[in-house]
Amino acid sequence: MKIGVVNVGSRFSRERGEAIEAWFAANIPDGSIQIVIHPAAYQKHGHFGGDDAARTNAFVEFANDSRLDSVWFARGGYGACRIAEAALPRLTGVARKKHYLGYSDAGSLLALLYKAGFPHVAHGPLASDAVRDDAAAWRALNWLKSGDAASLEPSLLTDPRPAVAFNLTILNELMGTPLEPDLGGHVVMIEEVSEPLYRVDRMLFHLTHQAGMRRCAGIRLGRVSDIVENDPDFGLTPEEIVRYWCQRSGIPYLGVADIGHDSGNKVVPFGRRP
Amino acid sequence: MKIGVVNVGSRFSRERGEAIEAWFAANIPDGSIQIVIHPAAYQKHGHFGGDDAARTNAFVEFANDSRLDSVWFARGGYGACRIAEAALPRLTGVARKKHYLGYSDAGSLLALLYKAGFPHVAHGPLASDAVRDDAAAWRALNWLKSGDAASLEPSLLTDPRPAVAFNLTILNELMGTPLEPDLGGHVVMIEEVSEPLYRVDRMLFHLTHQAGMRRCAGIRLGRVSDIVENDPDFGLTPEEIVRYWCQRSGIPYLGVADIGHDSGNKVVPFGRRP
Repeated sequence: MKIGVVNVGSRFSRERGEAIEAWFAANIPDGSIQIVIHPAAYQKHGHFGGDDAARTNAFVEFANDSRLDSVWFARGGYGACRIAEAALPRLTGVARKKHYLGYSDAGSLLALLYKAGFPHVAHGPLASDAVRDDAAAWRALNWLKSGDAASLEPSLLTDPRPAVAFNLTILNELMGTPLEPDLGGHVVMIEEVSEPLYRVDRMLFHLTHQAGMRRCAGIRLGRVSDIVENDPDFGLTPEEIVRYWCQRSGIPYLGVADIGHDSGNKVVPFGRRP
Repeated sequence: MKIGVVNVGSRFSRERGEAIEAWFAANIPDGSIQIVIHPAAYQKHGHFGGDDAARTNAFVEFANDSRLDSVWFARGGYGACRIAEAALPRLTGVARKKHYLGYSDAGSLLALLYKAGFPHVAHGPLASDAVRDDAAAWRALNWLKSGDAASLEPSLLTDPRPAVAFNLTILNELMGTPLEPDLGGHVVMIEEVSEPLYRVDRMLFHLTHQAGMRRCAGIRLGRVSDIVENDPDFGLTPEEIVRYWCQRSGIPYLGVADIGHDSGNKVVPFGRRP
């Protein structure tokens, strides 16, 4: 298996790229799983890891490369929504067969690939983060290799409905745009990091009022971590906030999800499981 | 003229309420313009200035009170979107005749009042902020009293098209919800405060992709102040960001607007001017 790593968002450091390569050298010395990082991943353009054209080109090149089995997003950090629409029409049948894995900002691109009918798109560990934790790295690789059920978010093993997972901010911002997939009948899992709870509440006001969300099967809440302090205390927990907006909007609240901005982040393949 | 002050968002301190009363006592000693602060404005409920029911009741009570000519929002701070839908059906013909003034978080309520056809709704100084600066206070009062042209955002004097103005975050979050007014043919003015530029860019991705925004006459950019540092530097100015998304979406960029989270914030009455 050969995996291509691309960066579609903010800057990616060479040190983190070398950490990915070092993990593979140490843990898969027989080369049975190979990793290749697109050289454009280290470009710099203001906030971004290269300008929009460079990031688009690198993603398209790896997606269309028949020598690669999977595309793994290097890291999160804002930028994917700028390039998703331009990338899609350039993707070939080769790209359609690949597995795509990542989350956080990369969710913008995952959403559009899923909307376009790509069958192997999943929310799960990013390359740079995964190699900080062996379990996370193997969880990602085992899903990329074989769709290993042990890598999956546990509710997927018993709930047959199609699912998606997103960072709350990312999902909130892609609703109503060409990146929004059909969420009808889907279990929608959300997670968040580094936001104060008043913003989580405001995003759920917006999200649960969107026509596309009103058709989903329900919301599962992943971890909301590194919460920015609300002064005074907000007065509701993240789960109470989600329950409130679910009740108000008529969207079923389905319980927790084992996803989050952390090494425990489980894999959520988009759509129906085989 | 008698003005009622209400708080629809986060907590409002008694000190700020007393500062409003003191300004009126000092500057309008003849009582020709009277101010009354709803006692519920000082309630506390977690993050909020009273729970949703208390804030809704206070707003509805003052809006429907025939002894008051205007409703002035006390301050910004998240909360108005939670109560707007519940308040609207309780408003009477008396409420419809009043002037409503505020901005920032209060924009959620202004949007819904405008959508419901209330004719005197404006984005402009909040009560608490206005009395920190005499010019801002008189700008607000002169608009409430007579619609004084000197209070208006200058482009309104030459551009006959209907206009609205919003904090970018607030407008971004109300799109696609029942609070979204018809922006067809409107000049949409936006301003922002205390956000990093990558978030401004992400919000504009979302906003300029919304069907409702695609029908507007164009965007004017107010001040983007207290920008949270982007590390590294984002690489585009706020105006370059707005120009980029306007160009990409086909929404005309119309130039700057004299609005912002500051004492220079001019008044933008929603809709057509008389």
